[in-house]
Amino acid sequence: MTVTYDDVKTAAERIGGHVLRTPVLEISPGLFLKLEQLQHSGSFKVRGAFNRILAAGELPPSGVIAASGGNHGLAVAYAAKALGVRAEIFVPEVSSPVKVAGLRALGAEVNQVGAIYAEAAEAAGKRAAETGALQVHAYDQPEVVAGQGTTGLELMAQTGGVDTVVVAVGGGGFAAGVTVGAGTAGGSGPRIVAVEPLLCPTLHEALRAGHPVPVEVSGVGADALGASRLGGIAYDVLSRADVQSVLVSDDAIVAARRALWSEHRMVTEHAGAAAYAALLSGAYVPADGERVAVVVCGSNTDPATLA
Amino acid sequence: MTVTYDDVKTAAERIGGHVLRTPVLEISPGLFLKLEQLQHSGSFKVRGAFNRILAAGELPPSGVIAASGGNHGLAVAYAAKALGVRAEIFVPEVSSPVKVAGLRALGAEVNQVGAIYAEAAEAAGKRAAETGALQVHAYDQPEVVAGQGTTGLELMAQTGGVDTVVVAVGGGGFAAGVTVGAGTAGGSGPRIVAVEPLLCPTLHEALRAGHPVPVEVSGVGADALGASRLGGIAYDVLSRADVQSVLVSDDAIVAARRALWSEHRMVTEHAGAAAYAALLSGAYVPADGERVAVVVCGSNTDPATLA
Repeated sequence: MTVTYDDVKTAAERIGGHVLRTPVLEISPGLFLKLEQLQHSGSFKVRGAFNRILAAGELPPSGVIAASGGNHGLAVAYAAKALGVRAEIFVPEVSSPVKVAGLRALGAEVNQVGAIYAEAAEAAGKRAAETGALQVHAYDQPEVVAGQGTTGLELMAQTGGVDTVVVAVGGGGFAAGVTVGAGTAGGSGPRIVAVEPLLCPTLHEALRAGHPVPVEVSGVGADALGASRLGGIAYDVLSRADVQSVLVSDDAIVAARRALWSEHRMVTEHAGAAAYAALLSGAYVPADGERVAVVVCGSNTDPATLA
Repeated sequence: MTVTYDDVKTAAERIGGHVLRTPVLEISPGLFLKLEQLQHSGSFKVRGAFNRILAAGELPPSGVIAASGGNHGLAVAYAAKALGVRAEIFVPEVSSPVKVAGLRALGAEVNQVGAIYAEAAEAAGKRAAETGALQVHAYDQPEVVAGQGTTGLELMAQTGGVDTVVVAVGGGGFAAGVTVGAGTAGGSGPRIVAVEPLLCPTLHEALRAGHPVPVEVSGVGADALGASRLGGIAYDVLSRADVQSVLVSDDAIVAARRALWSEHRMVTEHAGAAAYAALLSGAYVPADGERVAVVVCGSNTDPATLA
């Protein structure tokens, strides 16, 4: 199962009226930030959510169901509310109170189940089998990956093209979508630098093993990047596109998040700053004159933690 | 004394390599936010500061001097540091600790003098007469107004044109610059809606009196919009361009600032949200289909106050 450039273009047409074309800011010559943290619901996840729901056509009365570390749940709840559809969201107990409160504020029914994402996902799957609700997966459905990929499509148009895109990886749906949307999966796009916290190395371990494997996840990014196994679609896309896997420490992520606020007045959650951390910490060092775009991707955080 | 469209174009060429082309985000069809709060030093003020300093050519060893409620001081300190010039900044005692700490972090010499901006400005003037330093006024110098005006120039290019620009007014330098840069002062630009807090009505009272008059200033926006009299250049530009003066309550400003965070993940100071408050509170109601750009203009605030 894979996702094509045409799938991403179709997604862009389908969701165009529902999501924001988030802006790009060139913070220094040749270094672009795609401000996806300003997206509806506070992350890119709403792109995949709208695409999956709209592609499904008519829904059962039970509506949609999702399991999520938080951002995907918020996105599904946002999209469901915008489309007048019922939403039931399963989240693991580690989810931040900000995200759970946000889900309820969007009118979703919230169930906190299990210590990690995988347990919440299992409960959601059982429930969907009972109710017939449309499952919106956090990262491993073609429509979800194609929706996330619209970020890459926009990025290339807004920058006039770059040499390199730096993007965070959790379950891999976003990175895979961006890899397809930027044209790299088709062989003509920029280099993709796929960044993970050292403590959530799903892609890194999958590439080493030659297939997705279970990993232990922890650290500051785990509430949003803590998928315990890379998605199958993501593995297919990212391994074939020969993306560069880069790991960053929690300290580097914390420092990048602080710099985004103090130097650039952007508020992100830790996961949202992981890609920028790869540049700031030197985990990825661009060549002279290399045009680099970094995707900043989530802002579901308490701003008081930046004080 | 006035400022022309050509002055703004010259300023844009002069400062282009030093300031950010801040992005524009269309948050709903036809409603654009210009994200000038992401500018270096956290506000538009750095545009005027660079233009004034660069236009002056060689500087005396005493460098530059400025008086400021805070944002202008930060901007002058930022520009001076970037250009390797000494900076001495006078701020009134009401200035926020965040801003004063920011000034010192930029290497400026800071003097806190007087209860309001006018007293700090008087002290700065005396000091400049002693040292020969180049004075950079917060709003009433042609190079400063022309620099701020580059925001209007960009906005029109980035949106492809709008019917209306909504912009905050303190001393009026920013609103005047935007009015010139957007083309309105030349007779062909969009309608300008000039927004002030009810408690800092410098433009409103100047238009009533037919000339700038002293006003009492207070409230949540006073640390950044609390000039006690409209600038002469601003009066000339804004009165001739027939801008629409709109007043907003402190409650409306507080609500707009909170909405910018909770709905759009943007952190602004109160003054930075004043223009958006005019829309959100209904103080300005666009017609059906009217294309409106709101300039969000300052982020020098403690994000903990949004928690």
